[in-house]
Amino acid sequence: MSAAGYEGRTIREKVGEPSTVVVLDQRLLPHREVELELRGLCDYIEAIRDMSVRGAGLIGAVAGYGMLAAAVESPDRGLHEAIEAAGRALVATRPTAKDLAWAVERQLAAIRAETSPGGKRRAALETARAIADFNADCGRRIGLHGLPLIEAIAAGKAAGGGLRGRPRAVEILTHCNAGALAFVDRGSATAPIYEAFERGIPVHVWVDETRPRNQGAALTAWELGRRGIPHHLIADNAGGLLMQRGMVDLVIVGADRVSRRGDVANKIGTYLKALAAQDNGIPFYVALPSSTIDWDIEDGVRDIPVEERDEAEVTHVRGLLEDDGAGGTAVSRIARVESRNARVESRIASVRICPEGTRAGNFAFDITPALLVSGFITERGTCAASEEGLLGLFPEGRESTKEGVR
Amino acid sequence: MSAAGYEGRTIREKVGEPSTVVVLDQRLLPHREVELELRGLCDYIEAIRDMSVRGAGLIGAVAGYGMLAAAVESPDRGLHEAIEAAGRALVATRPTAKDLAWAVERQLAAIRAETSPGGKRRAALETARAIADFNADCGRRIGLHGLPLIEAIAAGKAAGGGLRGRPRAVEILTHCNAGALAFVDRGSATAPIYEAFERGIPVHVWVDETRPRNQGAALTAWELGRRGIPHHLIADNAGGLLMQRGMVDLVIVGADRVSRRGDVANKIGTYLKALAAQDNGIPFYVALPSSTIDWDIEDGVRDIPVEERDEAEVTHVRGLLEDDGAGGTAVSRIARVESRNARVESRIASVRICPEGTRAGNFAFDITPALLVSGFITERGTCAASEEGLLGLFPEGRESTKEGVR
Repeated sequence: MSAAGYEGRTIREKVGEPSTVVVLDQRLLPHREVELELRGLCDYIEAIRDMSVRGAGLIGAVAGYGMLAAAVESPDRGLHEAIEAAGRALVATRPTAKDLAWAVERQLAAIRAETSPGGKRRAALETARAIADFNADCGRRIGLHGLPLIEAIAAGKAAGGGLRGRPRAVEILTHCNAGALAFVDRGSATAPIYEAFERGIPVHVWVDETRPRNQGAALTAWELGRRGIPHHLIADNAGGLLMQRGMVDLVIVGADRVSRRGDVANKIGTYLKALAAQDNGIPFYVALPSSTIDWDIEDGVRDIPVEERDEAEVTHVRGLLEDDGAGGTAVSRIARVESRNARVESRIASVRICPEGTRAGNFAFDITPALLVSGFITERGTCAASEEGLLGLFPEGRESTKEGVR
Repeated sequence: MSAAGYEGRTIREKVGEPSTVVVLDQRLLPHREVELELRGLCDYIEAIRDMSVRGAGLIGAVAGYGMLAAAVESPDRGLHEAIEAAGRALVATRPTAKDLAWAVERQLAAIRAETSPGGKRRAALETARAIADFNADCGRRIGLHGLPLIEAIAAGKAAGGGLRGRPRAVEILTHCNAGALAFVDRGSATAPIYEAFERGIPVHVWVDETRPRNQGAALTAWELGRRGIPHHLIADNAGGLLMQRGMVDLVIVGADRVSRRGDVANKIGTYLKALAAQDNGIPFYVALPSSTIDWDIEDGVRDIPVEERDEAEVTHVRGLLEDDGAGGTAVSRIARVESRNARVESRIASVRICPEGTRAGNFAFDITPALLVSGFITERGTCAASEEGLLGLFPEGRESTKEGVR
């Protein structure tokens, strides 16, 4: 995919074949930009499961089109049962992600409202598009609502550091990738950063590597680099020291599921950054569209399911093997020599970082209790991380009850 | 080095040539066990700088022998000046490590007390051996003093879970490698674990990977595996969730420098685990020999120098490239095919995990404030993480003042 081609949405319908979409294969980023076509339901399920597509909002949008694909490929007879089965299969791929379940539920409601097979398929197409449009629109709005937070810090810095004549950048730390790649456009956590940068506010981003899958190193650094936004990659371990030293002004992360009272399931490690932010008096914001809110769960620490993944993601690290054996250490010099001997070319490869046979635990998310969250940035504005805060912006949440939805 | 050969000390004098020592090249672990001989001062400096040897206690012991090597290789004329210059060069290699400075100071004091060149060299040999012996002895004593902490938890678990007939293991989380490889023998953080395991107390260790250099994945997992101690490798991000879910009973880490009031400089990321332990009411202990205490620094957060290292440690990850392209993902399948094409053999290599040209920040340590530390485990017993606690065990610390030592 050309650089220019990417600047639009991260999911596009194939011309003349709307149940087929074109996405970037995120497993190959940042080293290769390869497009994937998702055609039938199995393609959609596999792409979400193997994380060719990932990120709260994007997997919701992909699931919306996956439901469409199921509607298109299933025969008229038993159509509704086939669509319901597709929904169950899609939801099962990533248990923590609320946007995924939300998109499937929205499709099911729209399809249920139609009686004819043709009507159901038309409803599925309209809904798939509406979900993607909603997601893209949320990115823009979250950016605008988060902007004042960055503007306020920038104003404070300009006042304090103006004597030296050079404005000091607003230092923002983010974890994982809650960027354009995780959404249909603009992202959630990155949206306010993009908005500020485009308006000329100096920003600098500390990008958490985000082990075990390194979405920060591979995806967020790639997104920021393409937009020319200053940033440094850091180990996930580094954020605490940076905050101790006053090198972080603001933390913004995304979310995979937010409970009614404001507990946040997000990529594993988020909770540790929230603790450090609290300990150092640094604002910690979570950016999310309302489709990420799970009105049916109160206590997120206890009740949000946490996905467990393959041990190999922890025992091995994937990246680009360079034929010059870059790394700058004596070991790299050894590797360089071995490399020449083997006549290896630059390619994507996995290296094992532990003894053979080492067992690993791989939990994909943790839960940041609402008390550690300074506030939410949503498509309708910012609010406190509490039931009152969320209901103030989204009064329709009052209608949801465990009985009503499940 | 044979497996049996390693079970002794991590630093051994070469027979008949005591100023030359044999160590394991830790950069190649866990994939290759290669011994290095350190002969002249330059070998010692280079081994510490490039982290062939690392770990608070071990670099102290290596520095002790490095001073001996300087005394042996320098001519009689100007001997003392040469030894002092060697001390400065050794201390400069790793600015945060207190044991290193302590070993050099101890050598300088011993050598200064002698007037003849022969006397100075004899003093250097005796002191090098004394430093290594002290370090090994501390490992044993720290193990014994830390044991009751594990025994108490084990007793509580046996009482609670005894009905099912199978004792539940004491769950211990550790960060980085403060094991035998970081010391002359037994380690600091691992010493109580080894003591408990050898006495039949069921233990299970959560091993933090410890990016960017992965000492947990490469070294701690290797040490625990050789001893048969049950463990799982986890991403540095995972500890918070494990604590939230009650899957950690105790955290034990080592230290690179501890201030007079008990602030702890240790591998970057330690502070984040201390915050999570506090938030979940889990005991957080720091194990250290007294040589790690810096009596001259009060406020560790403000005054302990934090080493910054090469960006390539963050942008690249080193490990074993396996010819079967293990990893279990579709990308690995791609890599496997590419791998066959390139006829690569299993070898140590670096992979880049971010876009080319990405800048990185690489701080090696953070500071855990004393308030977050449940207690210290030292060679003289356990104590509170406070000036009173430390002086209770080490009253000689009263003699040290900024003026007196520097």
